[in-house]
Amino acid sequence: MQPVAIGLLGLGTVGAEVARRIEDRQGAFARRIGRTVIVRKVAVRDPQKPRNVPIPADRYITDPIQVATDPETTLVIELMGGIEPARTAVLAALEAGKDVVTANKALLAEHGAEIFAAARRAGRSVAFEGAVGGGIPVIHAISVGLAANRFAALAAILNGTCNFILSSMARSGLSYAEALRQAQELGYAEADPTLDVDGTDTSHKLAILAQLAFGASVTTDMIPRQGIDTLQSSDIQYAAELGYTVKLLAVARDHRDAGLELRVAPRLVRRGSPLAEVSGPDNAIRTIGEPVGSNLMSGPGAGAGPTASAVLADVIDVIIGRAALTARSLDLWPADAPAPRLCSPRDVRGRSYLRFMIADRPGVLGTIAQVLGQHGVSIASVIQHDPGEDDHPDAPVPLVIMTHPASEADLVAALQAIDFLPIVTPPSIRLGVED
Amino acid sequence: MQPVAIGLLGLGTVGAEVARRIEDRQGAFARRIGRTVIVRKVAVRDPQKPRNVPIPADRYITDPIQVATDPETTLVIELMGGIEPARTAVLAALEAGKDVVTANKALLAEHGAEIFAAARRAGRSVAFEGAVGGGIPVIHAISVGLAANRFAALAAILNGTCNFILSSMARSGLSYAEALRQAQELGYAEADPTLDVDGTDTSHKLAILAQLAFGASVTTDMIPRQGIDTLQSSDIQYAAELGYTVKLLAVARDHRDAGLELRVAPRLVRRGSPLAEVSGPDNAIRTIGEPVGSNLMSGPGAGAGPTASAVLADVIDVIIGRAALTARSLDLWPADAPAPRLCSPRDVRGRSYLRFMIADRPGVLGTIAQVLGQHGVSIASVIQHDPGEDDHPDAPVPLVIMTHPASEADLVAALQAIDFLPIVTPPSIRLGVED
Repeated sequence: MQPVAIGLLGLGTVGAEVARRIEDRQGAFARRIGRTVIVRKVAVRDPQKPRNVPIPADRYITDPIQVATDPETTLVIELMGGIEPARTAVLAALEAGKDVVTANKALLAEHGAEIFAAARRAGRSVAFEGAVGGGIPVIHAISVGLAANRFAALAAILNGTCNFILSSMARSGLSYAEALRQAQELGYAEADPTLDVDGTDTSHKLAILAQLAFGASVTTDMIPRQGIDTLQSSDIQYAAELGYTVKLLAVARDHRDAGLELRVAPRLVRRGSPLAEVSGPDNAIRTIGEPVGSNLMSGPGAGAGPTASAVLADVIDVIIGRAALTARSLDLWPADAPAPRLCSPRDVRGRSYLRFMIADRPGVLGTIAQVLGQHGVSIASVIQHDPGEDDHPDAPVPLVIMTHPASEADLVAALQAIDFLPIVTPPSIRLGVED
Repeated sequence: MQPVAIGLLGLGTVGAEVARRIEDRQGAFARRIGRTVIVRKVAVRDPQKPRNVPIPADRYITDPIQVATDPETTLVIELMGGIEPARTAVLAALEAGKDVVTANKALLAEHGAEIFAAARRAGRSVAFEGAVGGGIPVIHAISVGLAANRFAALAAILNGTCNFILSSMARSGLSYAEALRQAQELGYAEADPTLDVDGTDTSHKLAILAQLAFGASVTTDMIPRQGIDTLQSSDIQYAAELGYTVKLLAVARDHRDAGLELRVAPRLVRRGSPLAEVSGPDNAIRTIGEPVGSNLMSGPGAGAGPTASAVLADVIDVIIGRAALTARSLDLWPADAPAPRLCSPRDVRGRSYLRFMIADRPGVLGTIAQVLGQHGVSIASVIQHDPGEDDHPDAPVPLVIMTHPASEADLVAALQAIDFLPIVTPPSIRLGVED
């Protein structure tokens, strides 16, 4: 049998790990595949840069399109990240008749329809286990192992940087800025962490998971998104007093006739529940399906080894022919699919954590409770903190309220009204509770 | 396209759930498969029994072999459980050229070699997601999603009955007998729970997982097995005082040159660690692989809905052709595989929980510590409990010791020596710690 010849786009930490494991003939990967696999061409920006990779320098090429369309290869692995030139190279590879394995969540979330249309035209498959959840085989779980289910909901921790920062803030009482700096020093956050901490990365991954689980054409612009960069450590401490941990969650929930609820936001999760106990840079995905019930998967959400595990699982799937069958049965990002019907905030009910900064004088709690009541929001518990010793006697003090279930629309309206009260220093904070 | 015609062996709670979902044309299952599927024949013991299943009574047949070999079917689903007549029926189905889906862990653990040899001869596939972990797609995860890894270890909670009983004993201080009765009343334990509580069911499932993860011909007789039926609630309470939960664990660990460690036993897991927090009837599987690192999957370990989810995932895999490709690339239970080299107790090191019943007088702790020391076992911590108020003044009192890591062989020898001391009431208890 001919060896399988691979074109590799990108040779960063993940690309180098994948290349090393393909060339390592002793690994589980090589044993499982039963065929010889070689990395025929590699697209790199700087071919002169010294690299600890067992690939001869004459296979390095600076033009990704040339690598993607090389007539000698049959499979292209895209690990460049970002939209361009990855998009053009993946489309060129498909058009040239090659299967594609990619870990690029931004590309799939923003151009999935175009890419899967090109794959269908070419009769090729696109596999993407590495795009979501790092080393957790969540794409295979949802699309293969749990394929017989109708999914009702999923809630997931999909960004290791954010989870590391939130874990540090909860454990050590660090501010967001301090926890971010620590994460950067330890290599868990990039120099420019914007796309991680503002929730963009998580919403890319949620768009992909929601596509798979609900068969809906979800794009990132449909997902209301709130990051962790505006979180205050005091809210994490008050949540802890109430028995909750704050996690950046990706949530998708099927409300049947009322539509699909989608969101990326910091949310309160009860301590001791499975998602609350996922700490550090790990990721986790909880799914609820019919007939299976509730499942949880957790593991390393990023890093060279875990992502290589996912990419190489896809390479095996493509080479032995399974990926083509999966692609055919899944009909991902169909060209003619209508957009999903999205839930209105009227239809989404849940408990909320509220924090107001109020004037420290009698009657204020009563006024706020009254406004909440006028909007149909009832109170489950209240914590009123004393002013700090160093605070000015007139400084506003925090008032923390846990509500009973109420509609999002009512909560938003109530908070708008409360923020107009002269006894309140806006903006008041609202975080949903994931029950 | 012709409809896919299925022969179903067994129509208990799982069989009925599978039949209903196959006949339900509205389900996720039907949408995913893209073909019509019908249950053509069903093997049942009593065709007259009233059943809430949308299958005409004229499709019921009492002879499973006749259903397994029916010329109109192409796929046989075996949900009878037990060894015979399941074994004969599955072999007959394969020989008649049918693919097989089964959830029968006892059959695969004890006759896997014979069944997979028959499948290879016939060029057919045997899929078995439902055999381990109920609704958790662990078979797909290990053999597909994590296929590029070399596994170093797995530790798993694989029996929901045992986990429910242990959770009750820990939470309510119930004795084993009381917790078992409660589990039976709630439907979490069968009238005859022997195969669950003595660890047999867990060892069947471990044999299957170890086959997959380590590519070794593991049979149940290689697995040292200890059940929960001899556990005392006092040991669960003392473990809790030390910060541990007791779980019935299936463990497989690759010690490379020293061989494969296999065991089923109640073990101490540190509270707050992922496996410790799996409570009630749930199952969980933790794997450690290279390059992925540590992964955890948890979910419902049994029941009609979860098992149907697993069986129907296999049905999809068989019908769209993926199961055949997986079977070919996996080479399960190869006929000529040597037995795995098993670890000697000399080579297995770990911490242990020890509980002695000793005479309540000075110097006894010193004597026991000395014997442990002579066997190379050093002590990490000691709890000596006061005698109960109602106890006879001469009644033995418990002495609980947590050791530092030591070899199993040394621990066994030390306990044998200690149980000969006149100041000790044997048998002393030893439970390993899963770190």
